[in-house]
Amino acid sequence: MTLHQPAPLPALLAGLPAVLTDWLRGIAAAPKVFGGFPGLALLPADLPLDRSKAESLVAELAARYAAAIEDRAAVPARLAALRAELARRGLSGLFLPLTDEYQSEYLPMRAQRLTWLTGFTGSAGSVAVLTGKAAVWSDGRYTLQLAQQVDGRLFEHLHSTDNPPPDWLKANLKAGDRFAYDPWLHTEAAVKRMKDACAAAGAELVAVEENPLDAVWGADQPPPPLGPVRVQELALAGQSAAEKRSTIAAAVKTAGADAVVLTLPESIAWLLNIRGSDVPHTPLPLSMAILHSDGAVDLYIDARKLDAAVRRHLGDVRLHAPEDFPPALTTLGTGHKTVQVDPMTSGSYVLQRLEAAGATLVRAEDPCLLPKACKTSAELDGTRAAHRRDGAAVSKFLAWLDAHAAHGGVDEIAAAEKLQSFRRLSNELRDLSFSTISGAGPNGAIVHYRVTPETNRMLEPGNLYLVDSGGQYPDGTTDITRTIAVGEPSAEMRDRFTRVLKGHIALATAKFPEGTSGQQLDALARKPLWEIGLDYDHGTGHGVGAYLSVHEGPQRIAKLGSPVALKPGMIISNEPGYYKTGGYGIRIENLVAVRVESEKAENGKRWLGFETITRAPFDRRLIDLPLLTAAEVAWVDAYHALVWHDIAELVDDATRDWLKQATAPLGA
Amino acid sequence: MTLHQPAPLPALLAGLPAVLTDWLRGIAAAPKVFGGFPGLALLPADLPLDRSKAESLVAELAARYAAAIEDRAAVPARLAALRAELARRGLSGLFLPLTDEYQSEYLPMRAQRLTWLTGFTGSAGSVAVLTGKAAVWSDGRYTLQLAQQVDGRLFEHLHSTDNPPPDWLKANLKAGDRFAYDPWLHTEAAVKRMKDACAAAGAELVAVEENPLDAVWGADQPPPPLGPVRVQELALAGQSAAEKRSTIAAAVKTAGADAVVLTLPESIAWLLNIRGSDVPHTPLPLSMAILHSDGAVDLYIDARKLDAAVRRHLGDVRLHAPEDFPPALTTLGTGHKTVQVDPMTSGSYVLQRLEAAGATLVRAEDPCLLPKACKTSAELDGTRAAHRRDGAAVSKFLAWLDAHAAHGGVDEIAAAEKLQSFRRLSNELRDLSFSTISGAGPNGAIVHYRVTPETNRMLEPGNLYLVDSGGQYPDGTTDITRTIAVGEPSAEMRDRFTRVLKGHIALATAKFPEGTSGQQLDALARKPLWEIGLDYDHGTGHGVGAYLSVHEGPQRIAKLGSPVALKPGMIISNEPGYYKTGGYGIRIENLVAVRVESEKAENGKRWLGFETITRAPFDRRLIDLPLLTAAEVAWVDAYHALVWHDIAELVDDATRDWLKQATAPLGA
Repeated sequence: MTLHQPAPLPALLAGLPAVLTDWLRGIAAAPKVFGGFPGLALLPADLPLDRSKAESLVAELAARYAAAIEDRAAVPARLAALRAELARRGLSGLFLPLTDEYQSEYLPMRAQRLTWLTGFTGSAGSVAVLTGKAAVWSDGRYTLQLAQQVDGRLFEHLHSTDNPPPDWLKANLKAGDRFAYDPWLHTEAAVKRMKDACAAAGAELVAVEENPLDAVWGADQPPPPLGPVRVQELALAGQSAAEKRSTIAAAVKTAGADAVVLTLPESIAWLLNIRGSDVPHTPLPLSMAILHSDGAVDLYIDARKLDAAVRRHLGDVRLHAPEDFPPALTTLGTGHKTVQVDPMTSGSYVLQRLEAAGATLVRAEDPCLLPKACKTSAELDGTRAAHRRDGAAVSKFLAWLDAHAAHGGVDEIAAAEKLQSFRRLSNELRDLSFSTISGAGPNGAIVHYRVTPETNRMLEPGNLYLVDSGGQYPDGTTDITRTIAVGEPSAEMRDRFTRVLKGHIALATAKFPEGTSGQQLDALARKPLWEIGLDYDHGTGHGVGAYLSVHEGPQRIAKLGSPVALKPGMIISNEPGYYKTGGYGIRIENLVAVRVESEKAENGKRWLGFETITRAPFDRRLIDLPLLTAAEVAWVDAYHALVWHDIAELVDDATRDWLKQATAPLGA
Repeated sequence: MTLHQPAPLPALLAGLPAVLTDWLRGIAAAPKVFGGFPGLALLPADLPLDRSKAESLVAELAARYAAAIEDRAAVPARLAALRAELARRGLSGLFLPLTDEYQSEYLPMRAQRLTWLTGFTGSAGSVAVLTGKAAVWSDGRYTLQLAQQVDGRLFEHLHSTDNPPPDWLKANLKAGDRFAYDPWLHTEAAVKRMKDACAAAGAELVAVEENPLDAVWGADQPPPPLGPVRVQELALAGQSAAEKRSTIAAAVKTAGADAVVLTLPESIAWLLNIRGSDVPHTPLPLSMAILHSDGAVDLYIDARKLDAAVRRHLGDVRLHAPEDFPPALTTLGTGHKTVQVDPMTSGSYVLQRLEAAGATLVRAEDPCLLPKACKTSAELDGTRAAHRRDGAAVSKFLAWLDAHAAHGGVDEIAAAEKLQSFRRLSNELRDLSFSTISGAGPNGAIVHYRVTPETNRMLEPGNLYLVDSGGQYPDGTTDITRTIAVGEPSAEMRDRFTRVLKGHIALATAKFPEGTSGQQLDALARKPLWEIGLDYDHGTGHGVGAYLSVHEGPQRIAKLGSPVALKPGMIISNEPGYYKTGGYGIRIENLVAVRVESEKAENGKRWLGFETITRAPFDRRLIDLPLLTAAEVAWVDAYHALVWHDIAELVDDATRDWLKQATAPLGA
């Protein structure tokens, strides 16, 4: 298969031994962190290449990988090559969602198949290719971006909910068609929807063992990333891996299963007290595992990612190569084992292979999800420490912003970089927890805005500036949004900000019986906006990990949220907002931890509430004081007093002077 | 099969022709309304029996039916006879839920099988009978009542959620057992749960065409009730039956079906603009129907319930005997029709018979549910009129209560009877909408309390008195709860009442975008109690019909409520409460109608809110004024002003004087 451009690799790596080029490619396929490649630390000392040469080769490789993935000029040839490959295999078409074999929202380079094939770089989408036509789906956030990035002559542009893929398949497949999908990339339920659509058209849905797109991408496809794994120390985790394994194994046994298959890297990270660096901003060690009901663990991971300390820490965990995972499923099946697996988070490949081999399945939620969400005391203490450190950095940034932005000269990119530099000062920052959202004026009204050189705006007098950002620290993950007035805000801006604040306070101060779910609380945060016919089109709160994913389940505060009850120790965001398209965006986000307010209320239940753990002031210039009740004013004052108490000692003198004003009582 | 007592019927009806005794038995099997038998009006003039003789025979029959059903002394013989019948049929056991073939909560006498077999008279429960053991299930409300009414040597007493029937079946069935159920009395999902339980025990679940208990009950079982059907006039319904039939038929066609099977009498009542009198307090015409996609209707109903006016009104509706309904399902199947049916509200018999005969099923919600819930302008106007009338009656009662209760001499039964007498004064009352809940002191804390001579309490100084009641009027159904201080209330009572009132106001004043469901709003009503660690263990709001069921779906405001969005025209209760076991009960209930607050809010959606339609004052002596915000005080004052405005002209002078005080501004 020849594509229109030469493969970048041969020339660059020519003459190097395969063992070395495999290392370099894997390291380059993992994300950079603050410009560096963490995987370089893994390179064995005895390889025939000095460190600086390795670093420059990896940097060049990574740049070529990225450029090739986003090379829109190559799209027509890639599409043609894919169609040729499908024809060679006797297939009529292929569906590809934007996910990987971990069903993850955090993707390594090699899983950027949608971008490689279509040019589209949005964070949500899918593509279907048939012999004569093709279509790309995304949601309302990306309508414009689809138009800019994806050639409409090659791909129809469709809206995922208005015109979902199954409807399109029904309309465009023909009787007798053999339509393919990669069973690693779809849950059982998603396969069922496609299967029904194919059946309606008289077509056959075919699972393919080897992804046809990967076959076309070939040697140029980045390999699985090589990011180092670290130990998450017991002092931070608060519970040993041995204890977790024993508890989960007991639950698996109680469910009547001999083993549970774990396909979520975050579950494995939690279970084994390890962290990784294989995907951007989230310390996932890409891997799969089988936990047996006797507590034994088989871990399927590229062993090159494990240094001696991690191997010691893993102890009796049995290490296997990733390619040994599918045969291990077969072994469970031929041994007639009863195997627990989560159909909502595992690729259908796993369930199909287990069942085909003879295993009896227990379909149940990943048993690590709920215990992982309920943080230990050590994780809560660590998270509090991370938030004090992070709040100090954010406060330095806000003080700097007040001193510089009103006079012009600060743009969205510069502001985001300044904020990052303050966070890095602590020396404890491992990574940002996501790409900073830095939006001035109308850009602030774009909920998932990511600044680019093309969209970059100056912060101008009369603007609101919205900055949503976070850090990954060894002791905790932060996520904070502040909305700042640049110059003089309008009365409308102050009214809307104050209503968002009232909603934020209503949620922060809510007390509720054990058993209450986030979807029951969501309206408390919206009510002050609802009263005047306004709302925001996103959830109110998402779960947050302890030095893990900044989005984690199962808890969630949203209109159609999770019915999972909030439990003590869960960390969740409190982030109501308001967005005026073309005007400004407002969001006020703190993280809160669910805590017990009263051990035994009248009806015998525990009563729960929230501890706010974020530490940074709100912009008092945006508060319309008469709109707040006395209790709301008292809450803001008490919160600001806490901010002052916890971070005044952690900031420089200039910031401290600013903070004194920023956290003074509102009436003062 | 001989039971221990002689059948009551032969002697009483001896010598009368069968056509006449069938009439008399059917009329007696329908509920009395204010002591009379509505079915007597149906008796053909040419029958050989004068009216007063017929009336006394029916009264005697009804009394004997009721006494026989609740005859606990007969329980051991009935249980033995049932076991003999099961053995005769080669069955190992039988399960019976407390419902009928309409899956209804409103049961005619003949469906009181659980009471007949076990003696239990609670409103929720089920029974399983095996050869060597048996069990009765109910919920926490009825623990004490089970102990009092059901012989523990014959039946285990079990809690429906703590120890549900499937678990008990798994533990108690043996391999090879043939366990029976009546497929008219279970939905598909319930059958699935029983089937799984049987399979786990190696037993077989067997659907029985004829209910074995009915075979044992035999000639003494009350027949299907003969309650007259009336026309619901177009002026009250607001939409003709022809128009409704055409709209629903079009929806059925769109769903790809040739016909829809309707098994909910309330759906048929709505569709055909008729009302019945077959079950207590709810104007259901027990019947089933098939609506074809061309708008034609086959109605399966005992034609004796239809007078000439109703027959004229029904026009081209094709009338059939109820026993012709099952063969009609077969005809749909053998004609290879595609048939829409609601698996959540139809007995599994219907689905099984259709599928067995060859029909293709479209499983979808009963298409009448949502349009029935969204009242027409005429229904809303009627409901408002009914509430003014009803509010006047309630106000007369409250004025009377204030004049009499504090001095003693009023008990719960006398109070309920007095309230009923005020309601009947209007001459428009067709029935109560449910048995009045009239609870003084600790009886008020029993959420589903029904006073009996044994539990009857005096209203004593220092008591709270809770009265939850409603009326069925031709133009609307009411449901109202007021909590009244008898003598001087304690500070705690006033605090709790005021918090319940704050929750009631928060819900009454809520504004929300179209698409919001009741479960999203529920917490608004609970928040003031949650703040001090208190709650109430029931939903906040249930749908209410327009001269139909006082409980209707699909809308509901509750913790785990319906995800169905609230829509303009829906009527729903707003009834937070607080219950101190052994102390007192508080509930404040008004009905509200969902209305459009703003046709187009900023995000393009309609904004909705509630119109409170109930009209009666709250007890101001229970309001702890400093706990209310200025806005809450203003809401109460405005509501009381509306009450005064709407009902002052409808009450006597003494009540008007009382009402003037009762509705004066709170600060005054």
